[in-house]
Amino acid sequence: MESLKQKLREFAKARDWEQFHSPKNLVMAMSVEVAELMEHFQWLTQEESRNLDTETSEKVRREIGDVMVYLVRLADELGVDPIAAAEEKVSINEARYPEEKVRGSSKKYNEYE
Amino acid sequence: MESLKQKLREFAKARDWEQFHSPKNLVMAMSVEVAELMEHFQWLTQEESRNLDTETSEKVRREIGDVMVYLVRLADELGVDPIAAAEEKVSINEARYPEEKVRGSSKKYNEYE
Amino acid sequence: MESLKQKLREFAKARDWEQFHSPKNLVMAMSVEVAELMEHFQWLTQEESRNLDTETSEKVRREIGDVMVYLVRLADELGVDPIAAAEEKVSINEARYPEEKVRGSSKKYNEYE
Amino acid sequence: MESLKQKLREFAKARDWEQFHSPKNLVMAMSVEVAELMEHFQWLTQEESRNLDTETSEKVRREIGDVMVYLVRLADELGVDPIAAAEEKVSINEARYPEEKVRGSSKKYNEYE
Repeated sequence: MESLKQKLREFAKARDWEQFHSPKNLVMAMSVEVAELMEHFQWLTQEESRNLDTETSEKVRREIGDVMVYLVRLADELGVDPIAAAEEKVSINEARYPEEKVRGSSKKYNEYE
Repeated sequence: MESLKQKLREFAKARDWEQFHSPKNLVMAMSVEVAELMEHFQWLTQEESRNLDTETSEKVRREIGDVMVYLVRLADELGVDPIAAAEEKVSINEARYPEEKVRGSSKKYNEYE
Repeated sequence: MESLKQKLREFAKARDWEQFHSPKNLVMAMSVEVAELMEHFQWLTQEESRNLDTETSEKVRREIGDVMVYLVRLADELGVDPIAAAEEKVSINEARYPEEKVRGSSKKYNEYE
Repeated sequence: MESLKQKLREFAKARDWEQFHSPKNLVMAMSVEVAELMEHFQWLTQEESRNLDTETSEKVRREIGDVMVYLVRLADELGVDPIAAAEEKVSINEARYPEEKVRGSSKKYNEYE
């Protein structure tokens, strides 16, 4: 992760692209990549989405790479460690969604009485 | 990263949420989290987005955690290593965007003659 | 539609919000509203999404209103008539997707041989 | 609008695409189109986004058409009139954002004391 972050930072610097990499722009770019990933799933059933053919799998893998690139780049510009931020979020979610209360339900935490 | 992946897998399993975690659903959930992150930036100038106040920084950090959670979860369901996928994408982009050709320009690789 | 466009224009003007309503910002705001709409569908099956309960229907209706608000506002700032633009797109799609060729298939137009 | 709605309904029916047009799928498709629109703005300054060149304007116009197509199609499947829903939302927003209170500020309605 650290090595990926450094590589992306140098990639942007070498191309003089830091001027474009404001957090505002990077979040837009990440959102566009997420949509390119989503496009592969939009007409599939959930079952089909669990069983992609080889060609689609390869395309999806590349789009996941693109999303990750922008997420790491954005987090770096904001001084955030994305893995640490995710770990923290898991702890919050463990408190919000106690196992016995939410088992098998997809409701949002503020929808349980 | 490996530890985060395992934790998320167990989190879903313990709540019997694997049934909801089809790649189709997970990409939608990730897209929603990206939008929650984007909401903090929508009315800011680029300059302001580089200088967030403490409160917004903290919220943004949590949203980055959420995006990361779903990206890791989705990649796990698809058998993809997101860091490796990103590294591969960087190699592709190095070929697509040679430094001397693209320096200081934000055009897409297929827009250069 | 014309009346809605005027109303939204005056709404922004009366609040001195035109400064925030650059196309760049408006497209971000629209994307955020689309995600708020999508959130209601992320864990549903397709069948469930066709049969929403009354409460969800009402929320979804309001989110559709929000998306429409920003789409009309954005189109106005860009001097585009969204209905005319959609009509044109239908004509293009009629040529791209001839009935006999695409019936019952969800492939993209450039995926047919 | 009524005519566009009918045309889109027949377009889907003639291609036997109604099976793919669940609200869940349509909201994904709309989100993908919004991202294709957003892609044109991601590296632009706000000023540049107000002054698109002719070629970009034409592309943006077509993407607005695509978003409108899916918004009308989705609203039709859900039995919602998007213009009426937007008008209602304007009324709600007029109460939430009184002119004298919010003038020149981009805060969210629940951020005013």
